[in-house]
Amino acid sequence: MGGRRLSALGETSVLAALVELAAGDGRLAIGPGDDAAVWELGGRAMAITTDSLVERVDFLRSFQTPWEVGLKAWGAAASDLAAMGFGVDFGVACLICSPDTFEGTVLDIQAGMVEAASRDGALLAGGDVSSTDGPLTIAVTVVGSGPSGQAVRLGGAQPGDTVAVTGSLGGAAAALRLLESGRVPPEPWRRRLVAPLPRLAEGRWLRTAGAHAMTDLSDGLLVDAARVAKASSCRLELWADHLPLESELEHFFPGGSLPLGAAGGEDYELLACLPEPAARALGSFSGDTRISVVGRVSEGEGVRLMERPDGPEVALPAQGFRHF
Amino acid sequence: MGGRRLSALGETSVLAALVELAAGDGRLAIGPGDDAAVWELGGRAMAITTDSLVERVDFLRSFQTPWEVGLKAWGAAASDLAAMGFGVDFGVACLICSPDTFEGTVLDIQAGMVEAASRDGALLAGGDVSSTDGPLTIAVTVVGSGPSGQAVRLGGAQPGDTVAVTGSLGGAAAALRLLESGRVPPEPWRRRLVAPLPRLAEGRWLRTAGAHAMTDLSDGLLVDAARVAKASSCRLELWADHLPLESELEHFFPGGSLPLGAAGGEDYELLACLPEPAARALGSFSGDTRISVVGRVSEGEGVRLMERPDGPEVALPAQGFRHF
Repeated sequence: MGGRRLSALGETSVLAALVELAAGDGRLAIGPGDDAAVWELGGRAMAITTDSLVERVDFLRSFQTPWEVGLKAWGAAASDLAAMGFGVDFGVACLICSPDTFEGTVLDIQAGMVEAASRDGALLAGGDVSSTDGPLTIAVTVVGSGPSGQAVRLGGAQPGDTVAVTGSLGGAAAALRLLESGRVPPEPWRRRLVAPLPRLAEGRWLRTAGAHAMTDLSDGLLVDAARVAKASSCRLELWADHLPLESELEHFFPGGSLPLGAAGGEDYELLACLPEPAARALGSFSGDTRISVVGRVSEGEGVRLMERPDGPEVALPAQGFRHF
Repeated sequence: MGGRRLSALGETSVLAALVELAAGDGRLAIGPGDDAAVWELGGRAMAITTDSLVERVDFLRSFQTPWEVGLKAWGAAASDLAAMGFGVDFGVACLICSPDTFEGTVLDIQAGMVEAASRDGALLAGGDVSSTDGPLTIAVTVVGSGPSGQAVRLGGAQPGDTVAVTGSLGGAAAALRLLESGRVPPEPWRRRLVAPLPRLAEGRWLRTAGAHAMTDLSDGLLVDAARVAKASSCRLELWADHLPLESELEHFFPGGSLPLGAAGGEDYELLACLPEPAARALGSFSGDTRISVVGRVSEGEGVRLMERPDGPEVALPAQGFRHF
């Protein structure tokens, strides 16, 4: 029975080994290891992705209502399709819960998923409920679509590209930190944590603008940027003074806003790498969300966090959430 | 918080309430509550379904290897597409396991899913791994396709239809019973339990033959037949003397073969309701699996188990597996 335990191995290498076993073939335009798998069908590109939420690991019932758990379960999965530049069409969900769960809890989770699907122009098409003697677990799979051949990969970044990020960073991690210490977070931060909004419109706009690479920020900016760098065989330079940190972070965490914004997970914003002409058009995005330039792609590998463009390197704060 | 606990409510009514909340709309050809959801796309019908396996509820590691757990996780999900008369194209899987799980366990489960997908002409296209402090849990979602407008519903049975079942019944339940009492089951029965084969070819053949309604036998013949009866607003009469019980059942369980075959779950055979001309063609199915006539559809509701056609009613054995 196979060697090391997952806790000694690390999430990245477990995932890499799983991806290697699954390996795509010619039927997939984009195979395992990206935010979603993509195939071509009848002149459209279809994308599928799956994500799970586990009680005590991904959510605490003391911090959020069952309805919000449903919103989060859907939103986290839909975010992976946003990262392809695609919309969401349908989803299915497995609800796995102990027999002593209240009926209202399960129905509220379902209502949250149904509402989130509707908000995103999609439909919860089915699912399954089953029992466990363990924590409440929800696995959501979403299917979406976009124009043929246009899905934005994880690994398409090129030296010279501009790195951009949607919205603001650090709110979800700050809310979690405050809740864990018994304090009340500002409601917009709490909502980011418990009911993230997938950046679907922003993802489509970035795809149309010509993004070379894209991912969503679920595990934290530095961790997710490192995945883009590795898949693209490039280096991503990020500029601390350009990061769109939540404006009140420094008030709640004096001196701690950069680690929260750069390494805190669950913001579910998008990171995109764009060629120069596209990058110049970023200001013309007309949605409610700002899209900020936060760095550039260069030859090399990994992620460098610098104080400012061409400035000194900043020691990397502790990396974002790891399952193992 | 919402009324009764799931254990007091029963799986059927929990599922019904979840389905009611999700309710489809015009975008789905077949909505929540069937074996799979179906929508039309580019001249084809697409189907999606999701299913989960939970350690200690759906499998025990002492009875099956991790590789077999992967085979079962895939097979159980694919079986729902077989029940639409469709093939499987792609799948994604969430692997949720504790940090002290061995790497080899996770990789063997993945290898089992990859092998099962390949056997079914499909591809494991992606997935996710995450941590839990609870039991090993696997959620598999599969997407398949078939000709436009041709998916076989749960609720299409009509009075006068013939009820047919593929393969044989009772092997999986018998294997579980033997393993639980420390005995060694015949290997074909053990394989049915730990690595069920989705009846994809049989499902396609039954669809082409003109089946009005179809489902897979995961929870046991009587429970699954009752779902068809309810969705079709008909009665299903089943004839005990026609049931294709595993031939050695009576040897291992004297007097107990009927309850195992009629109420034991996890055989993953198909039950189909066919109009008369189609029913006469059943003998011409040329696959390895026999398709047996086991009853007929009449006006009324529910399921009646009779000794033989027009014979006396048999007291129903205890119903199949219930999650709640």
